[in-house]
Parts: sequence; structure tokens; C-alpha cells
Amino acid sequence: MTQPTTAVVFSGGMDSTTLAAHYHHAGNRLLLLSFDYGQRHHRELQAAATVARHYRAEHHVIGLTAVGALLPGSALTDPAVPVPDGHYAEPTMRATVVPNRNAIMASITAGIASARGAAVVALGIHAGDHAIYPDCRPEFLTALQACIDAALDGFPTPTVEAPFLHHTKTDIARLAAQLDAPLALSWSCYNGGALHCGTCGTCVERREAFADAHLIDPTQYATTT
Amino acid sequence: MTQPTTAVVFSGGMDSTTLAAHYHHAGNRLLLLSFDYGQRHHRELQAAATVARHYRAEHHVIGLTAVGALLPGSALTDPAVPVPDGHYAEPTMRATVVPNRNAIMASITAGIASARGAAVVALGIHAGDHAIYPDCRPEFLTALQACIDAALDGFPTPTVEAPFLHHTKTDIARLAAQLDAPLALSWSCYNGGALHCGTCGTCVERREAFADAHLIDPTQYATTT
Repeated sequence: MTQPTTAVVFSGGMDSTTLAAHYHHAGNRLLLLSFDYGQRHHRELQAAATVARHYRAEHHVIGLTAVGALLPGSALTDPAVPVPDGHYAEPTMRATVVPNRNAIMASITAGIASARGAAVVALGIHAGDHAIYPDCRPEFLTALQACIDAALDGFPTPTVEAPFLHHTKTDIARLAAQLDAPLALSWSCYNGGALHCGTCGTCVERREAFADAHLIDPTQYATTT
Repeated sequence: MTQPTTAVVFSGGMDSTTLAAHYHHAGNRLLLLSFDYGQRHHRELQAAATVARHYRAEHHVIGLTAVGALLPGSALTDPAVPVPDGHYAEPTMRATVVPNRNAIMASITAGIASARGAAVVALGIHAGDHAIYPDCRPEFLTALQACIDAALDGFPTPTVEAPFLHHTKTDIARLAAQLDAPLALSWSCYNGGALHCGTCGTCVERREAFADAHLIDPTQYATTT
């Protein structure tokens, strides 16, 4: 039997690293796709490459910097907009939305999956993303699959899977521990400095997940409060 | 009243040049987005820039060559696959499909439209595309809009318009003449040589459209048969 291939939208963060672990342990060949859209936390792409090497997986960084330059107003791509501190689900975190980002990344991944014979496109979106990011909600996932089905009618059509869609970040931390996912190699912080800042929305969420799961957090943060 | 902005998926071909003319004449500001996905007919991007200058329109070329390199098997991106000659609607033209291309380009354009305040994303797809290209059919358009609506819920959400969806290529040639669209500057040929080859699917379609509309074809073809 041929080993099935799963194409993973792969940021190198905690969620997509655990996602890669999930499909690796299920016996899938990994095709890991990261996206360089001019994100402030460009550092995550190094983390992605390191995790990919850990799994000896095929990994590509798709250059989308011309797209990022045309997306003003997001704290992740516009140097004029500061990254907000606070809790991930707070309204201030709206500033970190990059409009249509998951549709862009998933559409590219679906095209490549169709051409490369990957039956699954995997997204690491989870329940904690739903409040702020509309392109992480179940409704988006359903609409995305319908769009892929229509666009690839008569051609190999991948199925979009998001196994963590109803998981909390704490669930993901627990699963990562079970699967021995290399979370110490992953990168979350939106500020993209030398260390995780510890105070931006995604750092706060990362710290809470390990704490709530009663797991040792392997991350070195710049601030410990 | 502020002039409305329309973001056009703009290849520099006959359809999207006429599309730009359509929105220009309707009083819209144009935001023209072309995509470099490593297409063999890279020449079309020069044509796009020339048409953009004609309309004094904002124009950007979005680099997607890393995506094109991961889409083997299409005659438009894979040097190992020859461009088929013949009529556009023939089954051999399936070789020119780039999987999920319109979803990729439209998703990027929708994200930029949302960030840049363009209320419309315009696609030049038309009835002659339906047979071979699933991502040019009405079903795709409906699914695409639903995907954009879900992904941008709560954020500025563009409407996807495809005013030529039920037009033939001949209708487009006629409309271009009415609007004085600069079709002599546009580029169709999939082979991307110095001149239009005259025999590939899109050249055959282009020639037929002018002939059927009883219009002078401004295109210089390498072969006249």
C-alpha cells in the first residue's frame, strides 16, 4: 500500500507542529508548506524548517511577500501597527487578523496537493481561534471545502481536515506531549524577537496551555510575569 | 462621492483587458493584480503592465513562482509538458489547467481588496472557459463568494463579480471594440514567444473571436493558417 501524503499548512507554531506530529504518527508522508507573507514574526519560518528536519519531511516556504506588502492595517504585516499585548480572545487581538490569510494559504496548498497527489490538506485551526479569526471557524472550513470541490471538479480533489477544530490549546498541549511533538522547536510569538516575548496574545495563550495541561513549558520567555 | 475601487484579477489577456475597460468606463478606480506563477507565457505580464499604463491604473505583479514550481503536470508551468494545439474547448486542453489557480488568485485579491477598501473583486472568466476549467464555472463563483464571506465575517468583504460569465469570447471582442479597450496591447498566447503562435488553444480562440465579431484582429500571429 502506498503511504498517503498529507499537505500541511505549516507555520512552525505549536498547533501546526502538533498537527504534523498527528499525521506523522498516523503513518502519513508529510508535505509541509510554510508561507512568507512578510510577517513580523518571520522567525517562525526558521522554526518550521527545524521541525521539518526533525520529521525528515519535505518542506517548502512559499514566498508571498508581495501579498503581505499589499495588506496594510494588520499588526502582523504592517510595521506601523503594534502587536497588542493581552489575552488571545480579547477584541484588541482583531489587529492581528490578516484578511483572508487561511483562504489564501489553504487554496495554494489545495492546488499543490491536487498536483502532487496529496489526498488531505490539513489546517491547525482550533477552538481558541474562533472568537477573533473568522477564517478559523467551522463555517469557513465548510465553505472552503465547497470552493475546492468546485474549483477542482474532475481533477484530484483533496479533503480539508482540521482535527483540532474543536480542541482547546490545552488539549493541543496534551496531545503534543502524548505524540512527543517537538514543541521546544516551535515558535509562536508575534513579535518575533530573539526570545518569545511572553506578553503578546499568542505567547499568553501558549503559556496558559502548558500551565493548564500541567506540563513543563519548554519555551524561554523574555518576561516571566 | 468617493470613486469606488475594483480589484481586478488581471492577466493582461483579452478578457481581463476588456474587464478593466468595463470597470474603467463605469467610473471605477482600478487596482490591477497580475500573478507570476512561473507561467510559460510570462510575456503576458509585460502586456499587463502596458495595459495598466494605458489606464494609468495601480498595478502590482504578485510573485507566486514558488507555487508554480510545486504544480507539476500543467502545460502552463511544467516545461516537460508541451502546450497543446487545437481548439480551446477540446479535451486535450485539459493539459493547460493549473489546479486551483482561480481560487488562489481570487483569494489573494479578496484579502487585498478587504485591506485596501475595494468593494469588488472582478474576474474575467467567460462561457468559453467552462468546458475545460472548473474554476471558471458559475458553481465555482458561488462557492468562492461563500468562502470569502465566511473568511471575512465581520471585516470589509468584497463582492466577486464576473460580468462576462455568460459571454462568449466573441461577445467580449465586441464589447472591447465598444469600450475602445486596447486589445492590441493584450497578450493571450500560451507559448509566450515573440509573437502570438496562432495555433495554441488560446490563440485559436482569440482569432475566432475577432473573426466571428467581424472585427479587425490587431494581433500579429506567427502563422496565419
